[in-house]
Amino acid sequence: MYCLSFLTAAVAFAFAAWLYLWVKKQKTENPKIQQVSRLIREGANTFMNREYRILARFAGVAAAAILLFLPKPIWQGTPGTNLAMTFSYIAGTLLSAVAGKIGVMVATLSNARAAEKAKEGIRPAFLVGFRGGAVMGLLVVGCSVLGVAAVLFFFGDASILLGFSFGASSLALFAKAGGGIFTKTADIAADLTGKVELGIPEDDPRNPAVIADNVGDNVGDVAGMGADLFDSNVAAMTSALVIAQSLSGDYANMSMVLCYACLGLLSSIVGISLAGIGPKDSPTRALNASTYVTTGIFLALTALATALIPGFSWRIWGASAVGLLVGVIIGVTTDYFTDDAQPIVRKAAHACSSGPAFTILSGVSYGLISAMPAMVGIALSALFAYRLCAPMGEGYAVFGISMAAVGMLSIVGMIISNDAYGPIVDNARGLAEMGGLGEKTISVADQLDSAGNTVKAITKGFSISAAGLTVISLLGAFLTETNAALAEAGKPLLTGFDIMSPTVFFGVLVGAAIPAVFSAMLILGVNKNAQGMVKEIHRQFDTIPGLREGLEGAAPDYGTCIDIATVGALKELVGAGLMSILATVLVGFIGGSSAIGGFLLGNIVSGLLLALFMSNAGGLWDNAKKYIEAGAEGGKGSPAHKAAVIGDTVGDPFKDTAGPSINTQITVVSLVASLLSSLFVAFSLFS
Amino acid sequence: MYCLSFLTAAVAFAFAAWLYLWVKKQKTENPKIQQVSRLIREGANTFMNREYRILARFAGVAAAAILLFLPKPIWQGTPGTNLAMTFSYIAGTLLSAVAGKIGVMVATLSNARAAEKAKEGIRPAFLVGFRGGAVMGLLVVGCSVLGVAAVLFFFGDASILLGFSFGASSLALFAKAGGGIFTKTADIAADLTGKVELGIPEDDPRNPAVIADNVGDNVGDVAGMGADLFDSNVAAMTSALVIAQSLSGDYANMSMVLCYACLGLLSSIVGISLAGIGPKDSPTRALNASTYVTTGIFLALTALATALIPGFSWRIWGASAVGLLVGVIIGVTTDYFTDDAQPIVRKAAHACSSGPAFTILSGVSYGLISAMPAMVGIALSALFAYRLCAPMGEGYAVFGISMAAVGMLSIVGMIISNDAYGPIVDNARGLAEMGGLGEKTISVADQLDSAGNTVKAITKGFSISAAGLTVISLLGAFLTETNAALAEAGKPLLTGFDIMSPTVFFGVLVGAAIPAVFSAMLILGVNKNAQGMVKEIHRQFDTIPGLREGLEGAAPDYGTCIDIATVGALKELVGAGLMSILATVLVGFIGGSSAIGGFLLGNIVSGLLLALFMSNAGGLWDNAKKYIEAGAEGGKGSPAHKAAVIGDTVGDPFKDTAGPSINTQITVVSLVASLLSSLFVAFSLFS
Repeated sequence: MYCLSFLTAAVAFAFAAWLYLWVKKQKTENPKIQQVSRLIREGANTFMNREYRILARFAGVAAAAILLFLPKPIWQGTPGTNLAMTFSYIAGTLLSAVAGKIGVMVATLSNARAAEKAKEGIRPAFLVGFRGGAVMGLLVVGCSVLGVAAVLFFFGDASILLGFSFGASSLALFAKAGGGIFTKTADIAADLTGKVELGIPEDDPRNPAVIADNVGDNVGDVAGMGADLFDSNVAAMTSALVIAQSLSGDYANMSMVLCYACLGLLSSIVGISLAGIGPKDSPTRALNASTYVTTGIFLALTALATALIPGFSWRIWGASAVGLLVGVIIGVTTDYFTDDAQPIVRKAAHACSSGPAFTILSGVSYGLISAMPAMVGIALSALFAYRLCAPMGEGYAVFGISMAAVGMLSIVGMIISNDAYGPIVDNARGLAEMGGLGEKTISVADQLDSAGNTVKAITKGFSISAAGLTVISLLGAFLTETNAALAEAGKPLLTGFDIMSPTVFFGVLVGAAIPAVFSAMLILGVNKNAQGMVKEIHRQFDTIPGLREGLEGAAPDYGTCIDIATVGALKELVGAGLMSILATVLVGFIGGSSAIGGFLLGNIVSGLLLALFMSNAGGLWDNAKKYIEAGAEGGKGSPAHKAAVIGDTVGDPFKDTAGPSINTQITVVSLVASLLSSLFVAFSLFS
Repeated sequence: MYCLSFLTAAVAFAFAAWLYLWVKKQKTENPKIQQVSRLIREGANTFMNREYRILARFAGVAAAAILLFLPKPIWQGTPGTNLAMTFSYIAGTLLSAVAGKIGVMVATLSNARAAEKAKEGIRPAFLVGFRGGAVMGLLVVGCSVLGVAAVLFFFGDASILLGFSFGASSLALFAKAGGGIFTKTADIAADLTGKVELGIPEDDPRNPAVIADNVGDNVGDVAGMGADLFDSNVAAMTSALVIAQSLSGDYANMSMVLCYACLGLLSSIVGISLAGIGPKDSPTRALNASTYVTTGIFLALTALATALIPGFSWRIWGASAVGLLVGVIIGVTTDYFTDDAQPIVRKAAHACSSGPAFTILSGVSYGLISAMPAMVGIALSALFAYRLCAPMGEGYAVFGISMAAVGMLSIVGMIISNDAYGPIVDNARGLAEMGGLGEKTISVADQLDSAGNTVKAITKGFSISAAGLTVISLLGAFLTETNAALAEAGKPLLTGFDIMSPTVFFGVLVGAAIPAVFSAMLILGVNKNAQGMVKEIHRQFDTIPGLREGLEGAAPDYGTCIDIATVGALKELVGAGLMSILATVLVGFIGGSSAIGGFLLGNIVSGLLLALFMSNAGGLWDNAKKYIEAGAEGGKGSPAHKAAVIGDTVGDPFKDTAGPSINTQITVVSLVASLLSSLFVAFSLFS
């Protein structure tokens, strides 16, 4: 299986390189577009470099702590294991960082090319946008397969993967939460000063925040989402491998995890190479079609492998198939709540005509309701996977759940490609406007952009659910790790976490509060930074002569806005991240392993609820606004539109900062718990 | 103990009667005030009669189902038990209904008298408002002690109390959710048409919704909150008694539950009779002081009882003391998040100056953060109570938690008195305005009203936490009941609910989604009804000559508005209530007892989180608006004020409809689960 893993990763990298060269070959001619695209690229680079520098400091401290204490204090265990864990942690951060960096670089090359291609029509422009995004998808999944296989190959122990996975998580926490704060700081500030105060269009180059806004799309949606799904994917494989390793000495199960992950990547490669718009297709349909194609290929390939390879079980195949199918179904139900072709968004748009308060109330209500189908879906897929695999023997039931998560995440290469397509064409639309490519080209870019928004809602629902299923299996991994530590300490093993035990219950309640506080801190961070940036924009309008009026030669200072967003985002995310990690450590040292079991459960439950609520409510407001702008309820400039803009502004940090960051927060917390499991066994106040 | 219970209830009723006569003796002279007060009383009566009529139908169906199926199908068990359960259920609804009906009657008598007393100054007016509210407090607690003791006395089996408690819960669901929808429908419609469109003051008699608004204060806050706390109090006693009965044949524990409840009622009686404003006191301080006095008396009396009565344990006393103290502490932290003398509300008010989107975002964020201290507090009190009582033997630990809930609810008579004071003085302020009592009197009424608002935030935090602790002990009662059924069926007993079991986990995820959907349905209900009422008000302004201009003799048709609110509220609440009950039944028949255990946990966790979030965010927006109206951030009419009004409108159904109704929803669901426990044992799909 190692050979297959390395080979698949190599194929993915080669294909990504080919796509990159293909994108690069496309011409850009318009000097204005070239210039702005360069500004965006530089802005994104600046942000990511600074982010990585802060992350490096954090990772340094974490690596030192791991070296000293994990999996056991270095003076009590074998220093070699601690060293392996440290190395694995660093590899996790590095691989994710490299994938993110290259992915954003390609995305910021693609935006200008997609804009210019839009002159030729929708089909060639779509291809540029999609292939630019696919580079990110292939890199992320290639790196995760490569990394997991390599760690396993070199150290021969799945537990060491927890370090790798934690590395991926640390980076994701920074990339997703930091990128999320950055992008919404710029977006809100640009909208408030541009659209609302001056009445100039979204991507007007006079607005000093306009480049920062475009940078934000890249660092938030491309790098952030990529790191998030790298994290989920690695975590799903890790927990499946940790549990598989604990199963009665059968290596077939571990092979199966790697094999399925490789087949998922191969399916995505096929899906990506087949993608394209048919003559009568819409871009939305093209994106969704390639997801379905990838799903079908994955199911067929894994069935073939299961039939051919001895030791592979059909029950486990069933579990991963259920996971994948439920993931797709959740994506479709998310669409029901956020697509303006469906009744919910139209009802919310109608509520806008009664004023902003009703806009907010209806979005909040439908957002809360929208959490239900996904939560029931996750619950059912876990239940089915468990029942399916329980007859195979002890431990297999939990392994089934972890394979459902692996199955759900198998098509993640395709999901990231679709998702990264979004910011590229969003940027392209802005560039078409700033480069003065004319009405027709802008309208083509608009169509591409709108497809990106629709697909984004679906991929977001998908990635939250995948994270949900992953952390359920991480809960299993935590129990496995804890029992290993208990066995070594000669203490009685845990059979599970009983909610009637008050330490478990204590953990549940505290755990449930964490995602609420975490998301609130991020939202307050966006609020604060956006207000700071609005002030800066006002300063520029007041002091740069001719800028407000749009006179020739009056150029805004884009850099300062990028700087404000960068510094602010990094400052705010550190507090929120530390809060959730410290709470985990505190609960563990107070209530021990049982309290942590409950803590993880509470965290997962309230995290899923809030993440789904916030993402969907935000998507719903966004599309209600677009629906009104397309002419409903009085159209642009009507009171309903003003109310919808307020809803959209509230929804911005909901859907692009807090909601999807909660994913990462729950994964980080789950991994911290697994990593520290033996410390909690060794010491706790009330356990 | 039965004697003590009946005696204490009698004392409470006698004292309530004396207070009623005292309030009635106060004079009303102003004919306008008398007339409006009569309209409010009639409106409240109309609503409650209709509500009770629908409830009677619901209760009839439920009673028939109980008679046939509970605790066991009548053809399998003893019909006598089923009959006792049915009778006990009906008694629960009736006692709560009677207490609510009389309480509202007295409250609507007190409002006019408090308004006229306000001419004489703050101290006499305070006393009228407080004593009017205290009638409700005494009746509710008197009825709950009387009912619980009587059911136990007649049937000699604590399990029968589950029927009584479910009766109280059914009524609370109707009263709290229905009253909550009513009050906010009228409030929002009155504000939108009056303050926003016409720019007339809050209680202007020209507004056709103004009487409905005042009726809403009474049916929502007096009757609704009373029924809610009746429900919590009965549920806390019930679960403590059910668990105590299962403990190794020791009646001292059961006596202890009743004794503590009686001593709590006696403490409240003393606290109420001591209440009053000192010469230099503020009304807020007076209300809080009486809470602290009651707390002190309760702790002293129970310590005395524990010392004197053989079989009473100091550990159990400790558990109930912890519960009560944590309740008071949670009340104080709620104050921190919702009081405009504290930094949080001021920050939210400052965010209003950046526009409505920031107003909403900051309120949502602080609301989410505010849930944490209460959740940690509840978790810690459960943990301490458990640890304290665990050494006493098996089953005592859970009994300790239930006694913490009883302790927290012991001062509920005082809490309801403080809470019912709010709508009375709120009405009084309106009456003072409508009766033209002059600036000075209105300002006195304003001071009383503002104290009501502050205290309301605290009591709301208190009652949510009490419900939280109660449902934790109901989870214990559910396990006890399930094991009784399992033992009888000859099946192995449950030791608890393991979150690693996928049926439990399935239950947790589904259970967590219920409060979200429930609260969303209520909010959408308010939205819909308020829009209907706004339409009706516009119709009246358009068709009644001279109404808009406020000409002499142009009277609005108050009745139609009351009618719209009544019909709409009852329609919406039935759907939301049925949804949560049916979901419980469905999960039970799918996943059996284990799934229900998880379901209750998920329900409690997300219910607590959402209830605290919504109540506190709503309170915060309300007070931020008041803070701005008092002159901050540009004062009345400034852009910040407009944004704050939007925040307040969003907060209205959060804090007065959805938030506090979740309480009742989680209690109802917990009781349904306990009642149906033997059916779930007998049949389920996947257990």
